[in-house]
This record gives sequence, C-alpha cells and structure tokens, in this order.
Amino acid sequence: MNEVEEVSRLLKSEIVVGNLGSSLFADSVSMQGKRVVEINWEAPCGGDEKLYSMLTDMRRAGRKIDEANAKALEMINASHPFIAGIGTAIRDVPGMRENLILHAGPPITWERMCGPMKGAVMGALIYEGKAANEKEAGDLAASGKIEFEPCHHHQTVGPMAGVVSPSMPVWIIENRTHGNRAYCTLNEGLGKVLRYGAYSGEVIERLRYIEKTLARVLGRALMLHGAVDLRALIAQALQMGDEGHNRNKAGTSLLIRELAPSIVQVDASEKEKGGVLDFMHSNDHFFLNLTMPAGKCTLDPVMNIDGCSVLTAMARNGTDFGIRVSGLGERWFTAPAPRVMGLYFTGYGDDDANPDIGDSTICETYGIGGFAMAAAPAIVEFVGGTPADAERFTRAMYDITVGESSNFRIPAMGFRGTPTGIDVLKIVERGIVPAVNTGIAHKEPGIGQVGAGLVEPPMPVFQEAFEALHETFKQSPGSD
Amino acid sequence: MNEVEEVSRLLKSEIVVGNLGSSLFADSVSMQGKRVVEINWEAPCGGDEKLYSMLTDMRRAGRKIDEANAKALEMINASHPFIAGIGTAIRDVPGMRENLILHAGPPITWERMCGPMKGAVMGALIYEGKAANEKEAGDLAASGKIEFEPCHHHQTVGPMAGVVSPSMPVWIIENRTHGNRAYCTLNEGLGKVLRYGAYSGEVIERLRYIEKTLARVLGRALMLHGAVDLRALIAQALQMGDEGHNRNKAGTSLLIRELAPSIVQVDASEKEKGGVLDFMHSNDHFFLNLTMPAGKCTLDPVMNIDGCSVLTAMARNGTDFGIRVSGLGERWFTAPAPRVMGLYFTGYGDDDANPDIGDSTICETYGIGGFAMAAAPAIVEFVGGTPADAERFTRAMYDITVGESSNFRIPAMGFRGTPTGIDVLKIVERGIVPAVNTGIAHKEPGIGQVGAGLVEPPMPVFQEAFEALHETFKQSPGSD
Repeated sequence: MNEVEEVSRLLKSEIVVGNLGSSLFADSVSMQGKRVVEINWEAPCGGDEKLYSMLTDMRRAGRKIDEANAKALEMINASHPFIAGIGTAIRDVPGMRENLILHAGPPITWERMCGPMKGAVMGALIYEGKAANEKEAGDLAASGKIEFEPCHHHQTVGPMAGVVSPSMPVWIIENRTHGNRAYCTLNEGLGKVLRYGAYSGEVIERLRYIEKTLARVLGRALMLHGAVDLRALIAQALQMGDEGHNRNKAGTSLLIRELAPSIVQVDASEKEKGGVLDFMHSNDHFFLNLTMPAGKCTLDPVMNIDGCSVLTAMARNGTDFGIRVSGLGERWFTAPAPRVMGLYFTGYGDDDANPDIGDSTICETYGIGGFAMAAAPAIVEFVGGTPADAERFTRAMYDITVGESSNFRIPAMGFRGTPTGIDVLKIVERGIVPAVNTGIAHKEPGIGQVGAGLVEPPMPVFQEAFEALHETFKQSPGSD
Repeated sequence: MNEVEEVSRLLKSEIVVGNLGSSLFADSVSMQGKRVVEINWEAPCGGDEKLYSMLTDMRRAGRKIDEANAKALEMINASHPFIAGIGTAIRDVPGMRENLILHAGPPITWERMCGPMKGAVMGALIYEGKAANEKEAGDLAASGKIEFEPCHHHQTVGPMAGVVSPSMPVWIIENRTHGNRAYCTLNEGLGKVLRYGAYSGEVIERLRYIEKTLARVLGRALMLHGAVDLRALIAQALQMGDEGHNRNKAGTSLLIRELAPSIVQVDASEKEKGGVLDFMHSNDHFFLNLTMPAGKCTLDPVMNIDGCSVLTAMARNGTDFGIRVSGLGERWFTAPAPRVMGLYFTGYGDDDANPDIGDSTICETYGIGGFAMAAAPAIVEFVGGTPADAERFTRAMYDITVGESSNFRIPAMGFRGTPTGIDVLKIVERGIVPAVNTGIAHKEPGIGQVGAGLVEPPMPVFQEAFEALHETFKQSPGSD
C-alpha cells in the first residue's frame, strides 16, 4: 500500500483519536462526535523544561546512575539488622556529650524550633536535672550553653521531636552485613509523652522508669537471649498487618514473645519484670523504635555512592522537611514542613496541629511504612480509606523506587516485595512524592499527640536535590 | 412491535445464544458458528429431582427455616467466649470418668479406629499409668474395660485424634452470653505428638510436663490475670494473618503478651516460668486449642432449634466424617472420611496419609478456618495457591452460609464479616461443600504428622442430613 492509498484508507475508516496529555484537546474532539481514547500520561518533570533537560543530561550518563542505584538497592536488601543490646546515649552514641541534645530532622537552632520540639528539649533538661522547671529549662536552652544537633548526625533516629539527652537509654541495632550500628530511644507509649512535646511530671517520671527499670531489665534479658534477628521480626510483622510505622501491633507482639522467656530469668523482682512485660504489652507502638534504627543502620552505609540518586534520609524537625541523597553525601535539602492530612482526637483540629515532625520517615526510606501500606489496610481505614486505597498507595511507590525488597513482602499483593530504594530522579520525572504515614503533635509545647494521618512531602525539596545531583554530573560526566 | 415483527427482527439480527447448564448444548451451537455466552449456572441439588422436590417442600415452609436460621446466626454472633481457667478432664469435663477416653469425631469402636487414633489411645493409657507399653495398652483398649466416647458428647473438642484421658489438663472456655462451657486439651506442639498418633517416651514425657508444669503455671497466671476475652483475641488474630485453624501465629503471640505479665508473678521457679513462655513461643499452633473450644461453646447452644438447617458440628474420627444439624439435635450423619489434598513433609506421600481426622473443623463451623482463608493467604501459598485463591475460597462460602460474622472481619475483603452459619440446605442446593484446612497424620499408629492441606467433606453426609431435616418438616409442617 503506498502513502496515498494509506491516507485514503484511513479517511474511510472510523477515526479514533488517542489523547496524550491535556484533556482539553480530547474534550473538543469528543464534542465533534469522534471516539477518544484517553491515554494516562503526564508530562515528565511536570512539564518543567529546565528540569526535563537536566533529566535528559543525567539519563545520558545512564549506566553510571543505574549501576550506582543498583548497588544501593543491593546494599539495602543485603542489610541485616540485629538488636544487639541496650546502652545509654552518653556511653554508646558516637559524639554524644554532656551539653548536647539530639533532635529529629535536619539541623535547627533553638529559636527556629517548633513548639513540640521546644517542649521535648525542656522536658529533657528537667529529666537530666539541668533545670528545675519549664522557665529554667527554656532559659538554659536559649543561653547557648546547650548544643543541638540532628540525631541523623549521630547514627541515631528519633520519632516525633526525636529528643535524645545524655542519660537516655538507647536500643543498639547492628547491621551485621555492613558492620555499622544505629541507635534509638525506647518508645514511651501514647498520650502525654516527651516525643510529642509534653514535659509534665508524669512524663519525666516515665522517662526515669524507662532508664531505671525498663532498660535495665530489657538490657539484661537481651544479654541472656543473645542478639535478636530484627529483620526477621519486621518481615514477619509485615505479614501480620503491620506496615512498621503507624501500625506496630504485630512487631510488638513478636518482640514480647521472643524476649519474655529471657525477661523471666533476669535478676530483678517479679513486680519489676511483670511491669516491664506490661509496659510493652500496653503500647502497640513499642516496636516503632526498632523499625526506625533498622532503617537507619541499613541506609547509613548507602551514603556517598557516586552518582546514586537514592534517598538515604527523609526527616522533619517540625519546621523543615529535609532529605539526603546518596550521591550528595551528608548534605541536607530542606523546605518548610508540610501539614498532615489526618484525623484528630476529640477536641482537637487543624488549628492545633504542628506541621509534620520526626525521623520516623526513615521507615519509608527503608521501604516499609507508607510504602508497605497494602500490608496494613487497618491504617487507611482509620483515615476513611479502604484496603483498595492502601494497595494503590503501595503500587504508586513502585514508580519512584529502584526496585523491590527481597526481605519484606506483602501478602495482599501476592507476596511481592515492598517498593524499595526511593529514587529522586523518578520522583521529579513522575511528579510523585513518597507516601508517608505519621502522627500529629500539638503545635504548643507541653500538650502531646492530637491525631494521626498521612503527609505529602514537599516536591521542591526533591527538585533542589535533583538539581544538585545534576551539578555533580556536570563536574564528572560519568562512565560513558 | 407485534409478535411477527419481533420474530422477524430477531431473525435478522445476530443470534447470540445464552447457555445455562450443561456445556454440551453450548458446544454444539458454538460449532455452528454462533456466538455463545456461557452463563455460570448449576442445576439446583446437582440436578437430583428427589432432592430438589424436598428442597421445594422445605422452602415452602420458608418463614420457619428463615426464622430458625436467623436465630442461629444471632446466637453465633452474640456468643462471647472467655478463657475462664485451666482444669483437669476428670474434675471439670462433664461426664468424664476413670475408664473413659474421649476421641475426635463421631462415635467409633476401638476395632474401627484408624491407626493414629489407636496410637493416641495407647499413648493416653501409658500416660495414665494403665499400661506399661504398646502391647499392654492395645490389649487393654481392646478388652472392653475402656470406654470410648466422642469429645463432642462432653462439651469438648480435640484436634486430630482428639484423645482426652482423665488426668489431662483442659482449657475451660466460658460463653458468657449463653452461660455454657467448652473444654480442650493444651496444644502439644508439632512433630511427634499424641494427637497425631505418636506415643513414644518423648510424647508421654511432654504430656507429663504439660500436666505438672505448663498447666499449673498457666492456670495460676489466669487466676492472677482474670478471664481473658477470647473473642477479642480471635478477632484481632484474623486481622493479623491468622485464619484460626491452620495458622495461629498471631493468636499465639497475642495470648503470650496478654498472659506474660501474670506468668512472671506466679509462685514457681524462674526456670519453670521461662520454660512455659518458651513452650508457647516455640509452638505457633498453641492458640488452636483455644479457637476450637471457642467454636464449640458458641455452637452447643445452637443445637435443637426447631427447623434450623445450620450445622452445629463437623468432626472426623479418621474413619468417618460426621456432621450435626441444629434442627436434628444430637444425631450424627456420617460418611467415610475423605483424603486430604496437601503437601507432605520430606519422605512421606499419599500412601502414608490417614484420611481426614479431628474436631478442628469446629473452626469452619464457627465461621473461621477455611471460611476465613482470605485472612491468611500464607496458607494457600503453602499448597501452591495465591492470595486470589484464598479470597475465592472465602467468597464461595458466602453461598452456603446464613450470614456474616459481626465479630470476625477480613481486612483484605474490606473488613467484611466472615461467612458464618453453614446451611445444609444451601450446601445441597448449590452443590458446594464447606472449605476445610487441616493437618495430615500418618495412617500407622506411633508416627505422627506427615503433612498439611485442604480437604473436601463428602457431599453424601450433607444430603443425608438434608433428607432427615425434610422428614421433620413432614412431621410438623411449620408456621405457615
């Protein structure tokens, strides 16, 4: 058939229009009575020509990025975190010192800290015996005598305000594959707790109980038991309705049954040991402070792979949302912390909520949490969604990740591995931000948790990191 | 359009044939080049005219059956089982006596018992000190001095061989709504165990450990703790990957975390208490012996509702498969126990397998187990299926049940209640038998478990009960 015949044949047949992009064109064709097939398509980089041209540059160096990202995924999948024991921040956390307080998220000064973080810092100073009350604690924090640094700079992660002070006990998590460690405090439970910015007498008393009894008994139980395979516990929990961030009921249960036989043998009173088992049993989030450092010790070794566009951290201090990208080392990219879309406890609403806060986004960076939402449909139900929504959340994340977890599998999706290795190139190209589950803190210090929900990280932070990564490609054009 | 025009129009248009029933007709139309739409349809009662005429009779008495079945469903949903404590068969199980041994399934004589049930009986006689070895035990069992009765006749259920002898400790489960109780032994674990027909030294030793230590410590812990809301534990477990029959990992975990704080306080040595927690932790089926009596104490009060076609028991003694129907009281309907379709442990195959055995089908009768398969996709994966298969299993069961559980919900199905209240009328009408999960015992005594899988109960047993129910309708024509 020659070209004329071809056109003539086309004109005789029914014209079906395929529409790519804006639906305006499709609408006008459709109004002329022609069939239109809408093709689900978005312009790459949201139609931003500058970003698209950078993307093209970087894709040209294809093999370099692909190899770097494949290496990152391999390291994440090979990582094998164990619970090695319980220590104390001042003794075990690298770089910890007497006048240092660690906090969640990227670096921030006392002046710029949000209410709940200030509340947690004041509570920590009272707990440490450095201040007698809120007034003294606030003055000391502002005096310049106390230094503030991110948990992330000390192989540590902290949920919500993420405050770690020298006397606090910490889980010691060891990545046996890469030989590094990560640290996290012990979860306090819900309600009025330091990590949500509360610092009343009951909060300080609970912190002392955690130090004097809980950590002592659990630490000794771990010595009797030996290291616990944390990766295996997380993998099982994801097959039992947890996603490892906002739902940790199964993980908490598995930890209790693993440690209970050893807890019984610890040299402590029956009342103390019963109290420890009760404390864990009454807090379904107890396991969160283990999934977080499991993620941290997995992602720390992934930092500084040349040309790698995989995220090694997402973290919020309640004022800024920050990320780190492997190929860009320890540099933070930040934007204002977004609001959380969620449900509130009775008596609270949007006006009470602090913006997004905490290091717990290390879960999503690790390939669990929001990325494993399909494993925990009960969470979306809490915010009014359905199991189908949960699966859609997870499915969308395969579009912005390098690959799949070989450890963490989702029963509802035919035991497919969770989307793992968040790729900043794909985020910018596809215009899809990572899905994150989180709790909501009151914006004022001293109050605590007021709700829970889902949050959309700010796109500009990924675009800025993307541009910085492009800079490194200009400096070293890659292996091709 | 008049009739002639209508026919004329039809003849001009393309003829599409809708085929209902046998595909033979569809095939021949299809061969003539016509389009055939197969409509998924089966003749009611598998095309059996006698059964269909009986069904029509009974459906005519519609309101009576519907009201009776609605009452049964309401009673099942209202039932609220609690773990009340731990007792001993001779002291607590109604009608238990020194020379009595209870067994799984419908009534059976020593002579007709299958290998694993004989093995379990011999083991129980050795455990009770009534025989020194296999030979003595076999002789005593055959002597007529020992009586055998079904667990089901004594408010009791037992997994696999289901053997209960006087000294054995039993869980005491109380249905607080209806005031009745049910009993079950404590789960021994996997491998060489009495319930699978093994009776070697290690088996007897474990039974003594259960009696002397496990039951004593757990019983005291329960006294310190108070009754445990068993329905709440089962409901949570079904949201954590269990179906309550072949998968009980979550239920076992939830039970351990609930009881551990009290176990620590029991007046026993640390070694004993640690051992008890270890014993439970090492056996993910520990919770099965609680879901079973939860079902039994729920279904016992449902017996004897006039005109009710809901099953109150399905049970197998390894020789016969038996059922009971509410409207027919305590009468058993039996047929030969079917083979299990499953996977075998290395070294075993079809030739080693005993036919289906055990009272654990009380789970399905209760609306969990195979009926909640969609909650536990890991089980179908074990036999080579997918999560979609698991959901198909559960969906099919809605066709043969009166309604849905208001207590047990399946996350993967949008938190829909499990299919509950198995209706023998619908089974016969639709030609669908209940889906059952089970373990496989070696056919010879003394060996133990050799695999696990799925089993199809024999249709004749349901047809026979259906016919008997029809008889009662002839005697009392119902409320219309």
